[in-house]
Amino acid sequence: MKKQSKALVLLSGGLDSAVCLALAVDKYGSGNVIALNSFYGQKHDKEIECARRLANDYGVKYIEIDLSNVMAYSDCSLLKTSVEEVPSGEYAEQKRCVGKPVSTYVPFRNGLFASVATSIAISNEASFVYLGIHRDDVAGDAYPDCSREFYKAMNEAIVHGSGNAVQLVAPFVDCTKADIVKKGVGLKVPFEKTWSCYKGGEKPCGKCGTCLDRQKAFEANGIKDPLLEMHK
Amino acid sequence: MKKQSKALVLLSGGLDSAVCLALAVDKYGSGNVIALNSFYGQKHDKEIECARRLANDYGVKYIEIDLSNVMAYSDCSLLKTSVEEVPSGEYAEQKRCVGKPVSTYVPFRNGLFASVATSIAISNEASFVYLGIHRDDVAGDAYPDCSREFYKAMNEAIVHGSGNAVQLVAPFVDCTKADIVKKGVGLKVPFEKTWSCYKGGEKPCGKCGTCLDRQKAFEANGIKDPLLEMHK
Repeated sequence: MKKQSKALVLLSGGLDSAVCLALAVDKYGSGNVIALNSFYGQKHDKEIECARRLANDYGVKYIEIDLSNVMAYSDCSLLKTSVEEVPSGEYAEQKRCVGKPVSTYVPFRNGLFASVATSIAISNEASFVYLGIHRDDVAGDAYPDCSREFYKAMNEAIVHGSGNAVQLVAPFVDCTKADIVKKGVGLKVPFEKTWSCYKGGEKPCGKCGTCLDRQKAFEANGIKDPLLEMHK
Repeated sequence: MKKQSKALVLLSGGLDSAVCLALAVDKYGSGNVIALNSFYGQKHDKEIECARRLANDYGVKYIEIDLSNVMAYSDCSLLKTSVEEVPSGEYAEQKRCVGKPVSTYVPFRNGLFASVATSIAISNEASFVYLGIHRDDVAGDAYPDCSREFYKAMNEAIVHGSGNAVQLVAPFVDCTKADIVKKGVGLKVPFEKTWSCYKGGEKPCGKCGTCLDRQKAFEANGIKDPLLEMHK
């Protein structure tokens, strides 16, 4: 009998990675899926709480890893080490220096996450690493580590560097966030248990780049965001 | 005046990365070079001591980062978490399961190191990340994350994912270890302050894969290894 394949899913606790988890569980079964949450020094821990709950709900093995020491030198506004305020408004409109991504760009975050996930996948005999990057986040180079070019090269590096043991899977690399919501609805993802807002308030702020993106994605599907409904 | 470029060198404390450091200092000046040592749970700390001393001797900024949590799930024989003995003999001759690298393969180590280095390089405005991989270490797929294919893809992932802020430089990717020794001799690298042996004894064991490789590299240049001379 052929050995059952295993997958490792990078699970931030946000909407996109929650749908990734649902996809992987649907394909491989919960016993063959590992969820990996990478903490990198965020100002709040709302997302991590969501990741823990989601992993528990889906009945998958769950690993948390602390990478905040790697980001200790960054001035990204999402990090505890930064005094800068998280900006409001859409990514593409945020002010930035020429050639520099938005202030919420975490230096090479997805490259770092994919590499860490590959190391851990090899050790756990998982052949697939799921990463929930999507097209909207490229937003005029706001997050260059969400692009198709980045994904293609990173997958090749992982395939070669792991001796063909691991592949990087980015099911939404050509999708919009609205497409992801649609996919998630089909898979019955409990969106009320995910967190997207950059700020760590009692309820989503509704003003930061990721809140605006999330609202638009639900609107495009003609449905209400259950997280917002819950906080009404 | 054009801003002076900065480089970040992955410095293990071994011979190859020491020559990388010398090359970068020669090109950018010690004030524009950062050395980064990544601890990943090795059984001994001989290399780290060497890295610290080398960075100090070359007068460069020095950063240490602990990634042992990422490797905590690995059974690689070099790690503290493994009960397996470090094997003797050359890489290509080491017994291994089909499709599995040698027991001293640290899962996707160079991908992880390059990604961590890129994140830290961006935060420190360094444009070049130096990685001392070389041709001999590919040794019939012993270390797939030392190959030219891996390097090429990883560099592309870094260029795209950093928004063109960083490039990966692997000056020895097509070189033998003998070539590296030759380059190091020209740059007056203090080889007696580097450590290659997989074991952490008082002096190099002379029997493990990396000791044998090092001996051959010096012999090919018709010179004696100053580290061995010191321990005579």
